Amino acid sequence: MKVVLIVCDGLGDRPTRALGGLTPLQAAEAEVLDKVASKGVCGIMDVVAPGQPPGSDTAHLSLFGYDPWKVYSGRGAYEALGVGLNLKPGDVAFRCNFATLGGDGVIVDRRAGRISSEEAKVLSEALKDIRIESVPGVEAMFVPSVEHRGVLILRGEGLSRKVSDIDPHKTGVRPGVPRPLDDSREAERTAKALSEFLEKAWKRLAEHPLNRKRVEEGRPPANAILPRGAGTLPNIPSVGERWGVRAAAIAGGALYKGVARAAGFEVLNVRGATGTVNTDLNAKVEAAISALKDHDLVFLHIKATDTASHDKKPELKKTIIERISRAVSPLVEHVESMGYYLAFTGDHTTPSEVGEHRGDPVPIMIMGPGVRSDDVDRFDEVSCARGGLGRIRGMDLMRILMDYLGRVPLFGE
Amino acid sequence: MKVVLIVCDGLGDRPTRALGGLTPLQAAEAEVLDKVASKGVCGIMDVVAPGQPPGSDTAHLSLFGYDPWKVYSGRGAYEALGVGLNLKPGDVAFRCNFATLGGDGVIVDRRAGRISSEEAKVLSEALKDIRIESVPGVEAMFVPSVEHRGVLILRGEGLSRKVSDIDPHKTGVRPGVPRPLDDSREAERTAKALSEFLEKAWKRLAEHPLNRKRVEEGRPPANAILPRGAGTLPNIPSVGERWGVRAAAIAGGALYKGVARAAGFEVLNVRGATGTVNTDLNAKVEAAISALKDHDLVFLHIKATDTASHDKKPELKKTIIERISRAVSPLVEHVESMGYYLAFTGDHTTPSEVGEHRGDPVPIMIMGPGVRSDDVDRFDEVSCARGGLGRIRGMDLMRILMDYLGRVPLFGE
Repeated sequence: MKVVLIVCDGLGDRPTRALGGLTPLQAAEAEVLDKVASKGVCGIMDVVAPGQPPGSDTAHLSLFGYDPWKVYSGRGAYEALGVGLNLKPGDVAFRCNFATLGGDGVIVDRRAGRISSEEAKVLSEALKDIRIESVPGVEAMFVPSVEHRGVLILRGEGLSRKVSDIDPHKTGVRPGVPRPLDDSREAERTAKALSEFLEKAWKRLAEHPLNRKRVEEGRPPANAILPRGAGTLPNIPSVGERWGVRAAAIAGGALYKGVARAAGFEVLNVRGATGTVNTDLNAKVEAAISALKDHDLVFLHIKATDTASHDKKPELKKTIIERISRAVSPLVEHVESMGYYLAFTGDHTTPSEVGEHRGDPVPIMIMGPGVRSDDVDRFDEVSCARGGLGRIRGMDLMRILMDYLGRVPLFGE
Repeated sequence: MKVVLIVCDGLGDRPTRALGGLTPLQAAEAEVLDKVASKGVCGIMDVVAPGQPPGSDTAHLSLFGYDPWKVYSGRGAYEALGVGLNLKPGDVAFRCNFATLGGDGVIVDRRAGRISSEEAKVLSEALKDIRIESVPGVEAMFVPSVEHRGVLILRGEGLSRKVSDIDPHKTGVRPGVPRPLDDSREAERTAKALSEFLEKAWKRLAEHPLNRKRVEEGRPPANAILPRGAGTLPNIPSVGERWGVRAAAIAGGALYKGVARAAGFEVLNVRGATGTVNTDLNAKVEAAISALKDHDLVFLHIKATDTASHDKKPELKKTIIERISRAVSPLVEHVESMGYYLAFTGDHTTPSEVGEHRGDPVPIMIMGPGVRSDDVDRFDEVSCARGGLGRIRGMDLMRILMDYLGRVPLFGE
């Protein structure tokens, strides 16, 4: 018995004016999804808690069966794992942007003109041998990932993730100053180490020949890096240890890969899986089918629905849903023919008129041998609310799926 | 974005013989409520927990977003706050009745012939300078409220709410004796202080000229006060701190005002809001509309439904529901025209054939921009169970409402 869990990011929505009072899921002609709904059991799911907008990180921790209120330890760690870094317990990891500071120290461009991955790599070389002298025993490592993005790791004894964000998430203001967020000695040490690293890094970047060239050419220099989302490795058992399954993850975005890695999934790299609207869905679906050969649990993440929601484009979201419905068709057929299970849901609601995460539940459906099929035959937020699953919690989903696989030990006798 | 929360006390019911097997909500012709149901999303709600009959105090703590299992610290504090007293942390407050003891010390009338507020005030004057000598540093303050009701506060270091009720809730028996309810020194001190206060108070009351006059006139003397429900201020953040909203409360009964005050609501005094069957509903509704001008969250409490339930009058409850439906019409229209949210529910089920609180869920509906309207078009216990909200918990309601207002911070990133 095997199971595929498909999560469309930000899938849940609310009625929208642009779609005549329907949600994108309600408006979409998504034949394959509706077929799964009609064969399966449907419901709605509070991924973290009713009314609680989850981040994508806490949402996926929930979907993988962990209580995020207990285990969440900041986003940075997942970003680091997601770009392939090996974090050690105690490391503090930050998501970073290359950014452009003006002469007055004010942020002009949070993405340094979306600097290319190649140039970012060149600049990163110059940051390799920065030594932290003010806090003995602490090392700093900066690793660029895609375009303006990167990860900074502080490594050493007695560090803490309780330090403030440097990236203020807007332009026209100065970057934040590293501050400890609690009274601990660890937070103070971390803020101090971060301060020293940034001071040295920004100086080196400002003086870097590549940035001088960018300025000469009228392009914004990448003269700062702006860390945020300090995080440490969560202390969680892997899904393998917990349920005795071999688990694989297919995702474009680093964050999703990172959470999956933290949960012990084998992260498969799929050519064309970009985590953008232009991702190669067919390639991901094929990879999922292939992964079912030697995995019991395959997690497939699709980001595009959330992107359309953040961009406040309900019609685009509808179109993407229709594309997803078509694209997953071979996977649905494969699952059916093999007698496997398929769960299809979102990680949170991003109403496409709001453009931000909200706490409404997401629709969910589960198809497979022995599920108690209900009379819901449309996959959308309103229809699924009438379904046989009722209203469940994200944290319970993995146990429900593993139970279909017969992997949940009896509690009591 | 703003929200009005209307809570009808004891609204939930069960099928009744008197109404041909319908609940009062099912039997009522409540056009406006049904309109809200058809436009909004409906569900049922376990205010505290499934099958758990809540008191009105714990129910409202839940509805305001607090976990009553964690924060409840006795009813007395809410009564004290509700009659306008300023409690200090550490104060122990009791609800009290003026009562009549017979010559043999047995309770003859728990309400001293429903003594008038004026006479109760005169008698209370005589209790003002009672000194507690057996427990140094403890002061006692008695404040009368309406008719036979009043509040006693014990103030000083090292007191506890773990003391027994004096009011046995029936006649023909002697009042209870103050006993500590745990082994703490604090509970012992409090029981001792209460004993001394009651001994002195009862003596003064018995000898009071007004009571002598009442006896001469053949009226029951108010020769005792019977404390119960010892409570301390709960340690909870206000809704303002928690969600960044300005909150107002409109209620007749002291308890509801008290819980609202403890939760940081501004309690508005509305002429004619009596907390009885004869309350001026129109005045309360007008006050709610007006409160929306400078508040983000307006709580409107209506007691009459519970009173009819406790009196075991399902037909009266039905009539009251119909009256409420008509009365809230201007508020519903205002909310709709302004694009605000409206939530309508009860604080617990009081089956009108039982006459006591029971643990059945209550129906709930939420109307406003972007809610996922379902196909429920009748507001009652049975119809709402098919609604798009499913079955939620009272404690989650405030987060759900605040999420519609965009006030719930993202958890994670």
